[in-house]
Amino acid sequence: MEQKILEELEFIDESRIFTSKAELYAYGFDASIHHATPDIVIRPKDSEEVERVVTIANEHGLPIVARGAGTALCGQAVPIHGGIILDMTGMNKIKEVRIEDLYCVVEPGVIYAQLNEELGKYGFFFPPTPGSGDVCTIGGMIAVNASGARAIKYGATRDYVLGLEVVFPYGRVRFGGKTLKNSAGYQVERLIVGSEGTLGIITEATLRIFPLPERKAVALASFDNVIKAGEGVADIISAGLLPSALEIMDNVCIQAVNKSMAIGLPDAEAILLIEVDGKECTVREEIEKIAEILGKKATKIEFTDDEEEMLKLWKGRKGVLPSLSRYGEDMISVSLADDMCLPVSKIPHAIKEFQEIAKKYGIVIGAYGHAGDGNLHTKVLINPRKEENWKKAEEAVKEIYKVVHELGGIASGEHGIGITKAPWINGDIETMERIKKAIDPKNIMNPGKMEQWRKSIIAYLRY
Amino acid sequence: MEQKILEELEFIDESRIFTSKAELYAYGFDASIHHATPDIVIRPKDSEEVERVVTIANEHGLPIVARGAGTALCGQAVPIHGGIILDMTGMNKIKEVRIEDLYCVVEPGVIYAQLNEELGKYGFFFPPTPGSGDVCTIGGMIAVNASGARAIKYGATRDYVLGLEVVFPYGRVRFGGKTLKNSAGYQVERLIVGSEGTLGIITEATLRIFPLPERKAVALASFDNVIKAGEGVADIISAGLLPSALEIMDNVCIQAVNKSMAIGLPDAEAILLIEVDGKECTVREEIEKIAEILGKKATKIEFTDDEEEMLKLWKGRKGVLPSLSRYGEDMISVSLADDMCLPVSKIPHAIKEFQEIAKKYGIVIGAYGHAGDGNLHTKVLINPRKEENWKKAEEAVKEIYKVVHELGGIASGEHGIGITKAPWINGDIETMERIKKAIDPKNIMNPGKMEQWRKSIIAYLRY
Repeated sequence: MEQKILEELEFIDESRIFTSKAELYAYGFDASIHHATPDIVIRPKDSEEVERVVTIANEHGLPIVARGAGTALCGQAVPIHGGIILDMTGMNKIKEVRIEDLYCVVEPGVIYAQLNEELGKYGFFFPPTPGSGDVCTIGGMIAVNASGARAIKYGATRDYVLGLEVVFPYGRVRFGGKTLKNSAGYQVERLIVGSEGTLGIITEATLRIFPLPERKAVALASFDNVIKAGEGVADIISAGLLPSALEIMDNVCIQAVNKSMAIGLPDAEAILLIEVDGKECTVREEIEKIAEILGKKATKIEFTDDEEEMLKLWKGRKGVLPSLSRYGEDMISVSLADDMCLPVSKIPHAIKEFQEIAKKYGIVIGAYGHAGDGNLHTKVLINPRKEENWKKAEEAVKEIYKVVHELGGIASGEHGIGITKAPWINGDIETMERIKKAIDPKNIMNPGKMEQWRKSIIAYLRY
Repeated sequence: MEQKILEELEFIDESRIFTSKAELYAYGFDASIHHATPDIVIRPKDSEEVERVVTIANEHGLPIVARGAGTALCGQAVPIHGGIILDMTGMNKIKEVRIEDLYCVVEPGVIYAQLNEELGKYGFFFPPTPGSGDVCTIGGMIAVNASGARAIKYGATRDYVLGLEVVFPYGRVRFGGKTLKNSAGYQVERLIVGSEGTLGIITEATLRIFPLPERKAVALASFDNVIKAGEGVADIISAGLLPSALEIMDNVCIQAVNKSMAIGLPDAEAILLIEVDGKECTVREEIEKIAEILGKKATKIEFTDDEEEMLKLWKGRKGVLPSLSRYGEDMISVSLADDMCLPVSKIPHAIKEFQEIAKKYGIVIGAYGHAGDGNLHTKVLINPRKEENWKKAEEAVKEIYKVVHELGGIASGEHGIGITKAPWINGDIETMERIKKAIDPKNIMNPGKMEQWRKSIIAYLRY
């Protein structure tokens, strides 16, 4: 980093600037397989500092990458062209909680779990439920449009962003506000959701909040055939029921969980875990109706509204990801396929096809996730020490995404594109490039990512 | 219109091209006070025709304005620079209804009421509820991010757009898709919502759908003080209740309704109309709890879950707009202030201030609307034959919006900006202009509107 630029950055307290080799190396990772070393890491304390840093970066054409908790799975926070990492975790104030106005105002570094702990005091919550919720930041959730298991009923982060303060290369702006509705001009706040730091730096977010449900109930159903499980999902939805979670695990995931956690899940072809929430009288009524509906196709069903029993039923589902790497000797789960999203009814067909692909390449593929909103987590299990396995995995992943797109699916339901999924991004890249160039003409905002998206082999062609 | 261009447009069947003076004049109106005459009206039959027309318009730098049912209240569909009106009502097919996948695919000319009639056959619905729902089109709803009374519980149109096919000047593109989640690139589909035809022409929309509630219940509460009514709203929300509608009427609206409809509404300072929906056991429980909560502040409360009684209670609220023009001799309601949106708890204070403004100018101002989501409809009543009254009205409206913005509100909650509300638009205009220029460099898409937005006297200033 040039001395001149370092001098311009001297308004930042040195305790919040990191330049040692070790620190820069550590900040080069997120939760993906990628790594790149930044030239400097700055932990801003407020919007003004972010604005000043962005202005300097823009003057010098210096790359700038915002980073929350670094839980991104696809390299979103990896500074592939170096430059500045803005560590946003220092901006972690909950500025306002307005229950009667149904919103809260937060800085981007606020941890998801901390926000919901605060809102919980009033009997309210911010519904999206990322798996990394105990550590991930609201800014990161907005950057990738995070969601999780509750999306079938509650939607994703994009549905909760009422207003944003964003620092663009040309200045700090606000869109939306503290109102539940907004038809006053372009919904730029919604465009920023999912833009993965390629347009601007989020410095404040106003989020819609919801009352916490009074009660929950959970059912676990086993199937000897994944197609039957899929039919069960369709039957529940067609009956007008909207569970707060509708999760699926295939046999590979079930076996992995049983090996590593020994909680004795039924050795089925597929398991559905269904959670309903609401008022006491409705959750009981709904879970019983769901059990009755699934009874026609499931080999085994159990359901409960007892707190402890519910936790037990959830335990297996929550243990899938860590368990997968214990599935077999010397095998680890690699996040290459990750989190494709399909029309809900296509989930079982996709899982079937993935199993065929696994057979073809003599590898193991486990699929699990949010059957109710079509968002599948598909993990390839290989022995990473054997170079040939990586080749096999890469070939398998190509076929996996071919299936996803043939079934009307898209590359990512909740994790984002980053670097890993660039070849599979959907949507018209030219339009994204036009918007990117209009807002960030010098391409300083998380540069190098959209260049990879441009190489997408899936992106919709013009008609 | 040049002969050359007319010849290029010959691929459109002449039965769907309108060029007579009378036709062009008629197409120059929407539901606002504005008018401008187009050079030609084309009613395309499919996306391909729209794409060909837009390509021709772009080559010749010809303005092009999409039009649905023409119910826009602020001039959105008025072609202020002439050119082509695309009458989208010919593209009115419901292409797909996928209940188990929780989406439907429609052409932009589909009427809102027709879509919900079709979805209703399966026990599902598209929740936004515009007042013009019997005639307005889905394309128009997306263009202005329409919503209505149900937004406190169900959100607005922007929350339901899963995918769009849009024709930009440079071609036809798709964003989003048939999945409930999407983190695969820029959410351009959400940027298009509310862009009022200034970016592109919507040719297809994929919309999220929801199961219809089983039952409803309605309460009507009268207050001798509008502040108390506002406190009642806050008490309901803070108790964790989320009504499907929470409407307010001030005394002017109550008097207007009683004069024109003679349904004997209580002559109160304010009336709240609350609707809850859901399962039978919850609606009864909730409406009773709401009645109990409001009992502390209301002078009179009635509630029912009887279909006919509910319709009676709704009748007054639904009659406000037409009734206002019968409030006084030679008085009409002019849509100058329209549909500001405020933080929910600011509604009663806004109404109080509006009454002061009315006193100051010796005019009548009636306020009513969606208290639960902060979206107020404010109508100025004047004798339009007296020039001085228009001056008074314009001065009053300036003060009304000053109050709105001082209270943290915005120019429009659901009707959009168009021409009428251009002076009051929020958000950073430079960013909107950058995006507009990037996508529509020749400024053919509904030109002249953003130029007026630029003159906004409210838009957030840079810091």
